Amino acid sequence: MNSTLSIYNSLSGKTELFKTISPNYVGMYVCGPTVYSNVHLGNCRTFISFDLIYRYLTHLGFKVKYVRNITDVGHLENDEDQGEDRISKKARKESLEPMEVVQKYTVDFHKTLSKFNLLHPSIEPTATGHIIEQIKLIKKIIKAGYAYEINNSVYFDVIKFNKEYEYGKLSGRNIEDLIHNTRKLDGQSDKKNAQDFALWKKAESIHIMKWPSPWGDGFPGWHLECTAMSSKYLGDQFDIHGGGMDLKFPHHECEIAQSESINKKSPVKYWIHANMLTLNSKKMSKSTGNNILPEEIFSGNNKIFNKSFHPEVVKFFMMQAHYRSILDLSEKALKASEKGYNKLITAYNFLNEIKPSNNESSFKFDEWNKKCYSAMNNDFNSPLLIANLFDAVKYINSVKNGLNSISKKTLNKVKVSFKIFVDDILGIYGKNTTDTNINKVDEILNILLKLRKLSRENKDFKTSDEIRNSLKKIGITLEDNSNDTDYKIN
Amino acid sequence: MNSTLSIYNSLSGKTELFKTISPNYVGMYVCGPTVYSNVHLGNCRTFISFDLIYRYLTHLGFKVKYVRNITDVGHLENDEDQGEDRISKKARKESLEPMEVVQKYTVDFHKTLSKFNLLHPSIEPTATGHIIEQIKLIKKIIKAGYAYEINNSVYFDVIKFNKEYEYGKLSGRNIEDLIHNTRKLDGQSDKKNAQDFALWKKAESIHIMKWPSPWGDGFPGWHLECTAMSSKYLGDQFDIHGGGMDLKFPHHECEIAQSESINKKSPVKYWIHANMLTLNSKKMSKSTGNNILPEEIFSGNNKIFNKSFHPEVVKFFMMQAHYRSILDLSEKALKASEKGYNKLITAYNFLNEIKPSNNESSFKFDEWNKKCYSAMNNDFNSPLLIANLFDAVKYINSVKNGLNSISKKTLNKVKVSFKIFVDDILGIYGKNTTDTNINKVDEILNILLKLRKLSRENKDFKTSDEIRNSLKKIGITLEDNSNDTDYKIN
Repeated sequence: MNSTLSIYNSLSGKTELFKTISPNYVGMYVCGPTVYSNVHLGNCRTFISFDLIYRYLTHLGFKVKYVRNITDVGHLENDEDQGEDRISKKARKESLEPMEVVQKYTVDFHKTLSKFNLLHPSIEPTATGHIIEQIKLIKKIIKAGYAYEINNSVYFDVIKFNKEYEYGKLSGRNIEDLIHNTRKLDGQSDKKNAQDFALWKKAESIHIMKWPSPWGDGFPGWHLECTAMSSKYLGDQFDIHGGGMDLKFPHHECEIAQSESINKKSPVKYWIHANMLTLNSKKMSKSTGNNILPEEIFSGNNKIFNKSFHPEVVKFFMMQAHYRSILDLSEKALKASEKGYNKLITAYNFLNEIKPSNNESSFKFDEWNKKCYSAMNNDFNSPLLIANLFDAVKYINSVKNGLNSISKKTLNKVKVSFKIFVDDILGIYGKNTTDTNINKVDEILNILLKLRKLSRENKDFKTSDEIRNSLKKIGITLEDNSNDTDYKIN
Repeated sequence: MNSTLSIYNSLSGKTELFKTISPNYVGMYVCGPTVYSNVHLGNCRTFISFDLIYRYLTHLGFKVKYVRNITDVGHLENDEDQGEDRISKKARKESLEPMEVVQKYTVDFHKTLSKFNLLHPSIEPTATGHIIEQIKLIKKIIKAGYAYEINNSVYFDVIKFNKEYEYGKLSGRNIEDLIHNTRKLDGQSDKKNAQDFALWKKAESIHIMKWPSPWGDGFPGWHLECTAMSSKYLGDQFDIHGGGMDLKFPHHECEIAQSESINKKSPVKYWIHANMLTLNSKKMSKSTGNNILPEEIFSGNNKIFNKSFHPEVVKFFMMQAHYRSILDLSEKALKASEKGYNKLITAYNFLNEIKPSNNESSFKFDEWNKKCYSAMNNDFNSPLLIANLFDAVKYINSVKNGLNSISKKTLNKVKVSFKIFVDDILGIYGKNTTDTNINKVDEILNILLKLRKLSRENKDFKTSDEIRNSLKKIGITLEDNSNDTDYKIN
């Protein structure tokens, strides 16, 4: 496959031409959620970013095997090797069995992602579904000399690994600084060095999530599952590994160490990290209350914003920033995106209404189309793609208003391109997400609004008022502007 | 918990008073799908039946732990111990990795079930997620003396088990008959007796779905996973085990044998089996073409029926038969159910419109309500419940038409009961399944139809025609009857 796609590689810190390990084939692994709470909006941004990447690679003709895992055991509180497994803790709190917690939040995760129109990954493996593979991996790492067993737990020896390999190369951390900055061991830990991380943790007798192993009953460390599952489904070396920026260290650094210690080669060709989402210019945090869940935005049931926003609008807002930029969520920004979103969808619909003329179009399609691809080929630059789409929107509107013309041939080409860029790549379907009836609401409402406009023009205010009042009864509010009527569905 | 619920127990062949093992708590295990193809309508009927049971038990106040598994490995072709794993075979056919097949059809399964408004089970474990538990179980069965290893596979010794226990008691089969009717071993099998079944199968070297075990690389037998997962999440003895009638033998029989051989007690108190679904009076079968997928019914894209049916109508049709009766699907029957469904939902909506009077109602609420519960308490008799609901529908319609009256108190009670029986227990929400906009379409359309009616009454045919034509443009056809207008959304 001959592509001019360039990707920013977190490992090299450079934008590199994308060359796959096997021709036409892409193996991509993305770290999925730890299912112990409702999926965060920041996580959604990460998964939306990789959905864009998955969609674009597929559009380019690559056969992509996209693996995104579900962490259903082993993710400890505070990302430390001490403390309790997050899922077990939540299970205790909610008086549920750990696997009931897993089920509850896996269902929430899938539901939320489907509202954003994300495609399902090719495989969605779970950590508990790969305990045997993880035990096998630990045995290999011990055999290679980079892990040690102590009191029924197994730890990865970071100091030893760093003597022969480079620990910290992805996150740009230096082992000496790490040693200097790490809290000293408090005497309760079995680890040789504070930097070492758990591959297998001994389970206390009351612990429910545990499995037998050569080191006694226990459960795997969090970093291990991704190495086990990525290598099982994509091989010891694969093309793309992605995740949120916060996973770069220590999670991804540990994945590299685990893999290199046994395979003596880098597991991943391109590391891609999606940046964080802030809320009203501050870090999102449950404890400070500066936090909002996706469902709270969609329903409007929150104390942060004065109105609700459709999932596609929230997604469009995210697409208007590059995945590597920090993005700030605010009501103002969402409103601006909503306006832009509606403008884009309206113009997209106009494509089926405008009449082509015999005149050659002044719209330079080839140049424009090239610019769209060039945006995406430049490290998946969706904001630039959207800016280009708006150039076309401007032209479409001018044709619609009779100020410009478009030939049939060009119109058809634009239609095809909009289908590719809006539907297939951005994954935006004009609110037509779960049911065709959603679009129908708009369409039927428009007929009703046209009738109302007509009655008002005919001074038949009885009818126009009745329409307004009937709509109000079913929760639809009309807002008359100078030359148009907006509606709001509660 | 004091309940008068009676359940037909397949094990005893009798309807028994339901008494839980632990007070107020129900453990229920239902055999889920083997995810190697789109979910069948017959399977849907089974899961809809157990959803009804789950909903009713929950309504009665039981804390139900409902476990429904996903079979993602180990289900061999033809339910024989020879042959290929169904998922591996499909993977080869579709040029996918087995876990890609699993993902594809798990997604389809969840999507279809959500269209039927099924609640998610409490836990949805996978066979591949419990290999360790299955290996542990095999070791126990070998230790107890009821399984033998031969050429890296392990088989359950049915003949030996039957000497001390009773193999065949659930399905009413007699071991002598089984021996008599079973094909003789063809010499290619390692089994001692033809009735023995595999607990662990040796994997051929090309087999992808395999795990290390004390008996070499292989994969678990299908019957084993359900024993492993039900005992892990519900204990060695639990209240209800369900599944389709076709699973009674050999699957459930083998589960009983596996469990009794090590625990020396019956694993399940109540066995419940949902009966089969036929299509136009014949067995559904892909090979004969007498087959239809749920999605094909919803979309109308099939050669069997002349029109499409909404998932809720299909569900209502199934609820109109008792889960233990054979049910025949036909266009005539579906049309009748659609009519009944619309009648029920319309009357349900009337409850919010009809005006209560001061007169005492002649509707005997307490008696009626008792009959509804008594239907459900009699082995979840949903057709009888629905018949009772239609008694109320008749009364509601008569009040709506001014022929009868209802007091405010009774009206409120009926409202509460409808919410309980229609929404909570039958799980029917008036087409309002995935999005509030679906109801909105009806509501907005009704405003438009009212306007049209008014224009026609005022002889303003220009407006009434315009409404009809505008709707036609967006795919909505109006059909005027003698005193009403129906619409059809394409």
